[in-house]
Amino acid sequence: MSSYGDQIRFTIFGESHGSAIGVVIDGLPAGEAIDLEKLQSFLDRRAPGKSALATKRKESDTVKILSGLYEGKTCGAPLCAAIANSDMHSTDYSSLRVTPRPGHADYPAYVRYGGANDIRGGGHFSGRLTAPLCIAGGIAQQILQRKGITVGAHISSMAGICDRPFPFELTADLLESLKTKPLAVLDEEAGQRMDKAVRDAAADRDSVGGCIECALIGIDPGIGDTMFESWESRMASMLFGIPAVKGVEFGDGFAMAHKRGSECNDPYRLRDGRITCESNHNGGILGGISNGMPIVVRAAIKPTPSIAREQKSVDLETGEEKNLEIKGRHDPCIVPRAVPVIEAAVALTALDILLITEGRKWN
Amino acid sequence: MSSYGDQIRFTIFGESHGSAIGVVIDGLPAGEAIDLEKLQSFLDRRAPGKSALATKRKESDTVKILSGLYEGKTCGAPLCAAIANSDMHSTDYSSLRVTPRPGHADYPAYVRYGGANDIRGGGHFSGRLTAPLCIAGGIAQQILQRKGITVGAHISSMAGICDRPFPFELTADLLESLKTKPLAVLDEEAGQRMDKAVRDAAADRDSVGGCIECALIGIDPGIGDTMFESWESRMASMLFGIPAVKGVEFGDGFAMAHKRGSECNDPYRLRDGRITCESNHNGGILGGISNGMPIVVRAAIKPTPSIAREQKSVDLETGEEKNLEIKGRHDPCIVPRAVPVIEAAVALTALDILLITEGRKWN
Amino acid sequence: MSSYGDQIRFTIFGESHGSAIGVVIDGLPAGEAIDLEKLQSFLDRRAPGKSALATKRKESDTVKILSGLYEGKTCGAPLCAAIANSDMHSTDYSSLRVTPRPGHADYPAYVRYGGANDIRGGGHFSGRLTAPLCIAGGIAQQILQRKGITVGAHISSMAGICDRPFPFELTADLLESLKTKPLAVLDEEAGQRMDKAVRDAAADRDSVGGCIECALIGIDPGIGDTMFESWESRMASMLFGIPAVKGVEFGDGFAMAHKRGSECNDPYRLRDGRITCESNHNGGILGGISNGMPIVVRAAIKPTPSIAREQKSVDLETGEEKNLEIKGRHDPCIVPRAVPVIEAAVALTALDILLITEGRKWN
Amino acid sequence: MSSYGDQIRFTIFGESHGSAIGVVIDGLPAGEAIDLEKLQSFLDRRAPGKSALATKRKESDTVKILSGLYEGKTCGAPLCAAIANSDMHSTDYSSLRVTPRPGHADYPAYVRYGGANDIRGGGHFSGRLTAPLCIAGGIAQQILQRKGITVGAHISSMAGICDRPFPFELTADLLESLKTKPLAVLDEEAGQRMDKAVRDAAADRDSVGGCIECALIGIDPGIGDTMFESWESRMASMLFGIPAVKGVEFGDGFAMAHKRGSECNDPYRLRDGRITCESNHNGGILGGISNGMPIVVRAAIKPTPSIAREQKSVDLETGEEKNLEIKGRHDPCIVPRAVPVIEAAVALTALDILLITEGRKWN
Repeated sequence: MSSYGDQIRFTIFGESHGSAIGVVIDGLPAGEAIDLEKLQSFLDRRAPGKSALATKRKESDTVKILSGLYEGKTCGAPLCAAIANSDMHSTDYSSLRVTPRPGHADYPAYVRYGGANDIRGGGHFSGRLTAPLCIAGGIAQQILQRKGITVGAHISSMAGICDRPFPFELTADLLESLKTKPLAVLDEEAGQRMDKAVRDAAADRDSVGGCIECALIGIDPGIGDTMFESWESRMASMLFGIPAVKGVEFGDGFAMAHKRGSECNDPYRLRDGRITCESNHNGGILGGISNGMPIVVRAAIKPTPSIAREQKSVDLETGEEKNLEIKGRHDPCIVPRAVPVIEAAVALTALDILLITEGRKWN
Repeated sequence: MSSYGDQIRFTIFGESHGSAIGVVIDGLPAGEAIDLEKLQSFLDRRAPGKSALATKRKESDTVKILSGLYEGKTCGAPLCAAIANSDMHSTDYSSLRVTPRPGHADYPAYVRYGGANDIRGGGHFSGRLTAPLCIAGGIAQQILQRKGITVGAHISSMAGICDRPFPFELTADLLESLKTKPLAVLDEEAGQRMDKAVRDAAADRDSVGGCIECALIGIDPGIGDTMFESWESRMASMLFGIPAVKGVEFGDGFAMAHKRGSECNDPYRLRDGRITCESNHNGGILGGISNGMPIVVRAAIKPTPSIAREQKSVDLETGEEKNLEIKGRHDPCIVPRAVPVIEAAVALTALDILLITEGRKWN
Repeated sequence: MSSYGDQIRFTIFGESHGSAIGVVIDGLPAGEAIDLEKLQSFLDRRAPGKSALATKRKESDTVKILSGLYEGKTCGAPLCAAIANSDMHSTDYSSLRVTPRPGHADYPAYVRYGGANDIRGGGHFSGRLTAPLCIAGGIAQQILQRKGITVGAHISSMAGICDRPFPFELTADLLESLKTKPLAVLDEEAGQRMDKAVRDAAADRDSVGGCIECALIGIDPGIGDTMFESWESRMASMLFGIPAVKGVEFGDGFAMAHKRGSECNDPYRLRDGRITCESNHNGGILGGISNGMPIVVRAAIKPTPSIAREQKSVDLETGEEKNLEIKGRHDPCIVPRAVPVIEAAVALTALDILLITEGRKWN
Repeated sequence: MSSYGDQIRFTIFGESHGSAIGVVIDGLPAGEAIDLEKLQSFLDRRAPGKSALATKRKESDTVKILSGLYEGKTCGAPLCAAIANSDMHSTDYSSLRVTPRPGHADYPAYVRYGGANDIRGGGHFSGRLTAPLCIAGGIAQQILQRKGITVGAHISSMAGICDRPFPFELTADLLESLKTKPLAVLDEEAGQRMDKAVRDAAADRDSVGGCIECALIGIDPGIGDTMFESWESRMASMLFGIPAVKGVEFGDGFAMAHKRGSECNDPYRLRDGRITCESNHNGGILGGISNGMPIVVRAAIKPTPSIAREQKSVDLETGEEKNLEIKGRHDPCIVPRAVPVIEAAVALTALDILLITEGRKWN
């Protein structure tokens, strides 16, 4: 199911080679001006066909608003936005119907939907469906920004090469500056090595994965709920809904498993009369609720499963083993294009949580 | 909020030093025999007061069923089970009301609930609330087992010392054997070093964290849903609801960020006429849906924030900086006791997902 | 399923002859003082064994709070309250297991739960489960009252005899005064005729139904949402969850089907500088959202299906036709005892809707 | 909020004079062939501009499928369908922005959305939004029909004139035959009187309401859940989401309030070896669960609030009393066009409940 949220709720629709992809968002606060050019720029950050690292499929990905905006502002009714598909080469996929690609959803989807799922370009399982997520997330970001909340992300690692971590003193300026870079890294030299490593993998007819670190600043303390409605629970269930995400951690995350308590507890101090922490090992969340520090989350993205090498598979109809070679156009690494997608997911979770705590009439 | 689930739904209630803790579970399949002795044994695996590694608080944690069982079987009505609290030393906590403990929920909870939350023993934020989760999870396990589904876990690392990973060929016997060990590890020698490391930390008036790897075997391919209702999304939102969990990963998880596609795609082969994979880097889940391989998940658990060392805090009433020393009885490491808790969370998620796919009349 | 709500959520548990019945409520605003004596008085209004019109089963129905209250106030954690069962005569029901009572849930429940449901006293389908609903609703009423919101109800008809409708000018005093009457009617003389009609039916070994009209005053305009989250949708789904409710209408309800638009549109006028309506045919709700007028709802309650006359049934095991005579103690009319139940349902719906619009930190 | 459902979920989007209206449905069973011509015919039953009784606005209401269908069958991904708006006369509404129409959502919507809602043609509150509900319901009907389940409705009363009630022996043929009639009535002569009464009201510059009775046949016993997830609760929350519905009742509904138990209990008998009831006063539902009899529901529809007479209102900006005359094109009675809308709502509820009981892989 492609729906998420409580106080806002959105559903992502479309298949990679269907007539359109899009999203419906219910529960957006009314009266919020949405800058459609800015939204388009946000989407352009994930659009394909722009870089040597990405698939050659070209999609202009122009957003069309079908409902929910009136005189440029949200009007309280569900907002539907769609992107028409174009430049589809569906013939490339015909042979995959009965020969599932390793690492892809093909086989479980075949069983789950009794073979009725749209296999062309991965259908609804395609990474292309992250475009509507970015529409929803781009809108959420504009609303959050008006409340002084900023979300931003960088590639913390790609192909095994690590970027610098976020500094302790995180500013909106730093987060915004990352959005204008061709590769969202803090350490340009690491970025160049990442770029080379992706090209090497592509030359090897292989692919690479990476990790994206995202921060959310401007969240007051005392926002959110406990246990299964914690910031971590809500954000993780959104992030794991993004194809290829296989790990999610908050603050120091898995590294905390190897540390001692004295290294993980964030001491409280006063700063300009406000309670703050001297460190942020817990990523801004304690007991599921915000503590006023930046919320920091990291998502692991597996290497694109579509690789040009011959792979072992089976024929679902004849029930025989069979090798397959994937044709078509594929990203050797989707991590750079996933940066705005992670931002979108984080922004949407934040907006939902804020509306839960503050109410739907929040303003 | 302490509620979870769609086709089954449970709510955990209680505070550490209140009169009782418990759980209500709605939507359990009817007619399922529940072995209450077996359930109590499951709970005993997480009960405090049993090991030198754990808190000295002693709770018999005897489960009392208030509703939902009729002649030993689930009867279709919500099952409520409660544990009476005892052995409470509430005076230990009186000074903490206005001096939040670093790494604990005290400060965000104070803001969120306007100071009305029960601070004694951490109140509803206490790790003690994982006991009712184990009641629900122990019941879910019994139902799953009857369908040939087994869940089991081991400590994959503690205090920086790693256990062997699960073998590729996972059996119910192996998973069950772990449940009888004092420390759930595959490598006994590693277990001994872990034990020593925890004692060392305790002697240092410090605490340590760890990582738990959990497997679920017997799930057919084609179970589950896509995107935000993926196995990963649903399981992560449950796991992050457990206090102290700060990271969740599936299959090779974060390690996939450093690998190539050719190393992460699980090739399909036939085995005894059944489609299977030659490896399980994706942890049994592709596109959010089960592929028939064991579902493998890992959760990172941060070191217990309650340490005996003096720590920096602030006084929420006077608004002044203030140091604090935590008194009371605390686990230097909660990882061993968290093993059945993680199993419980995984079993409950699996039962919910199975009921979503198979319907509430599943049998 | 016995769970309801979004921003608050509660689950009702228990069976008529089980060890306890109760409710868990998650999401109550924190810091709200709950007067337990007042809560008990509210429950006493529905308790059995008090009137000649009601069943002879005597239950003290003493509420015990297991969690969620700290120093007399809600503490942000789920509130669990239970009532121990007593005075059970379970042997009365033994023969009903395979001979379903007409008008009761016995037969569909037998099919739905494969015969595993607790048949004693109706099990979870018993009207006794409205006691926990009253616990939740009584708590909601106390919170609402502090915000200037009052709920109150009267028996608008019973056994075919009609009470006066609510006057257009509804006051909290009028609503409160109804709660102290033995029979909640506006017209005492009609009440006396109702009383006689119920006694006549009982003498005939029969039962009667009735209708309850409930009002909610003090709701500001602009609260609530559209379509499937309208006040009507949310309130109806709660009210139809009460056993025996077979009809729900708002404002003039079914009577509007026979009227003209000019008779149903409520004209806007100013009164003390505030927008108000000259009539309230729409029951305070337009487009699903409150318009500032009293919210008025009516629920039809069918006659108690347990009657002493011989009735036609079948034997579910032998598959043969069979007549049955119901023994045990039963209300000839549950309408008087249902008045606080309807109030409880209306209060809970209102609290949930208010928290959706105003947020969980509402205060 | 314009979203509904658990195992299927749909969201209705669009405004009366926006660029498009439509619906996204998530969770439809995969592999179900959808006959688009048949779907269009279903929609044509509610389309405007066809009868003297209805608004003169002409909309072809051609459904365009944007996603979710692959080779004519549902493919497991969300289905999005849209209808482009045309023939809009938005200038008619300009004066209404600050002068709310009595009986319409204008005033509460103005408060709820801070004046940001789209007022043109009623925006998202327009009856026009029942067209997307019919798309979703038409699809649900096709899926249900394949399982032997039929839904059908008639106008049980209009303008105070009553049709015959449904006969006890309800057949699919009878229900289908109603769908081909210009006015869905059992008694043609009553239909002619209804027609005249609507014309009379229109000539009086007034409007009338009515009541629709809907039946669902082919539902096995033992489907559904208790209390707040009863058939009644789920169906009522859907039906009250339809603009103008102000009352909902099941079986004998409000009439049961005036009857005795002996007149309301449906006796069990055997018929062709199958358990059945000799009457259906409870409308096929006991304890919230189906008993195998036809499910019978009635919805009261208030008279169209848009009438040509001068009405009392206020000016929301100046805060002064002001009279208003509504211009534009309006139905003197929406009841005939609401018949397929009620059918759609009933079909969607049934599909959701069936998928809850039988699972998402239902087939």
